[in-house]
Order: sequence, then structure tokens, then C-alpha cells
Amino acid sequence: MSNSTIRILGIDPGLRNTGWGILDQTGNRLSYVASGVVKPPIKDELPQRLLGLYEGIKELIATHSPDEAAVEETFVNAGPRSALLLGQARGVCLMTPASCGLRVGEYSANKIKKSVVGAGHADKNQVQLMINILMPTAKFESADAADALAIAITHAHHRNSIQHKAQA
Amino acid sequence: MSNSTIRILGIDPGLRNTGWGILDQTGNRLSYVASGVVKPPIKDELPQRLLGLYEGIKELIATHSPDEAAVEETFVNAGPRSALLLGQARGVCLMTPASCGLRVGEYSANKIKKSVVGAGHADKNQVQLMINILMPTAKFESADAADALAIAITHAHHRNSIQHKAQA
Repeated sequence: MSNSTIRILGIDPGLRNTGWGILDQTGNRLSYVASGVVKPPIKDELPQRLLGLYEGIKELIATHSPDEAAVEETFVNAGPRSALLLGQARGVCLMTPASCGLRVGEYSANKIKKSVVGAGHADKNQVQLMINILMPTAKFESADAADALAIAITHAHHRNSIQHKAQA
Repeated sequence: MSNSTIRILGIDPGLRNTGWGILDQTGNRLSYVASGVVKPPIKDELPQRLLGLYEGIKELIATHSPDEAAVEETFVNAGPRSALLLGQARGVCLMTPASCGLRVGEYSANKIKKSVVGAGHADKNQVQLMINILMPTAKFESADAADALAIAITHAHHRNSIQHKAQA
């Protein structure tokens, strides 16, 4: 049971850049599959930009066939206007994998840092270093893709801890 | 040209209750078609609730075949956490008509009140009274559906003013 492979899609939502990262989990072993960034057309009106995000995520789900997805529970330290904008992108990022039949997990930024680095206050460089240690073949061209891989790793760890609890 | 009928779908986004209202515009004449509320399953997790919203809007577009859509530009007077939640529902409400090939307009709450009642600070009762005057056959069971009809009326007026400008 624990040797079956689960493919996990991590998503770091953003209206300009939505990072994504895919890994395979076989037992305790994680292996890098792919990562990248969906960039909706920036000059279009908001509905078209959100549609570009939806179609981009649908396309990568069709290409890589992940089994489950995970999205960062965005921490909002900006004003309500920024929160509303980010929320719109995040709504599409949560809904799209669900519309493809994927279970979607949500994890806070602190939980992701703790899960990947071991400390909730880790900075972005530490997260990227740990991803390279956990998955030496991982390639990511941007911080958004690295964050998405960190979200996928967190989901992999969280799935395990739920299984351990159930077996205890 | 001005006598062709345009069917407009208005949407008032919300995670618990998303109001919708549909009207036909033929020249300056507006006629009521239908209205209601999409209520995503409240006990589900967020991705499933957003999926319920997506599917509800898709279904009413399939049933009523609107030509264009309009969504309220939500005014956020709550904290960033509420704004994020509302933003998620709004993102799905903007994206879904676009995914069905509909042009989607956005209007502020003040513009909607001005367009329907003639004053930007009108209250909800005044909006509902004016909808009944503008479209005597309109039936709406909830304030959310009435708001959605007001959004559709605003889009009808806005389309006209753009046409008038173009003809001037």
C-alpha cells in the first residue's frame, strides 16, 4: 500500500504568476516530475486573465495526470483590495483541480516552511536549498515554482502523518 | 440593430449565496427572464464549494443561454481575511461566464445603485422597488437575486451609453 506512487500537484496562486510543481511520492521517497509558472495574459481584463489561469492549470493536469493537489493558504498582510485580487486567483486555483476530480489540500505558509525546512520562519533561500536536498533532480526557474514544489512536499508529508495516525 | 435582443446575466458573488438574474434587452426595453440563487454545499471544503459555484453558474448559462454577463465589483469594507474569502467566490463568478465565451462586465456597487435608482447611496429596498418598476414581471425570492438583476440592468444601461457614444 505504502509503495504505490501518488502524484502530487502543488500550486502557489497569483494573478501574475501562479507557480506549480509536481512530484511523485512512493512510500517515503519523493521524486521530482516537473514545475513551472502559469502566466495569464496580463493585459487582458480580469475575467480573461482568470480564464487563462483556469486553462493553464487544466492543461498541466491533462499533461501530467496528478492524483491530488495542494494549494497554499495565502497569508494576507496587504489591504483588503490586494486580498480580494489574490483571492480571485486563489479561487480559480482551488476550483480547477477539484473540477478535474482531484482532492485539494490547503496548507498555511508556516506549515509549508516547517514541513520543508523544519522551521516556520525559514526564508525563501532556505526553502529552495531544502528542495534541492529532498529532490536533487528538481529544476525550477522561479521562486514561484519552488514554492509550489514546497507545497507539494508539504502535502506528501501531511498525507504520511495522516496514514501513521490511522495505523497507530 | 438596436432592436436585436441581448440576453444579460447579472451575478452577485458570494460563497454562501451567489445571486443571479437574467433579462432581455431589446432596444431600450428590458424584460425579466429568470433569477435565483446558487448555494454551494456549505459543509464541504472550500475547493468543493467553489466547484459547486462553478457548476451552478455553468448550468444556468446552459439553460438560459445569455449573450453577456456582468458581475458586481465587490466593495470590501471588511478585513483582508473576509476579502480573500469573497475574492475566491468572485474569481469563480468572473471566470465561469468567460469560460463559456461570454463577455463579462464589472460594475461598482455605487454605479449599480446610480444606474437603477438614480442615486449612489440608495438602500436595498429602493433598488428592489425600482426593479419592480423597470421590470414589472420580475420575481425574486431573495435580496441576492434582486441585486443580481440590478447588476444586469446596469450592464444594459452601460451597453446603451457606449452605443450612444459610438453613434454621436
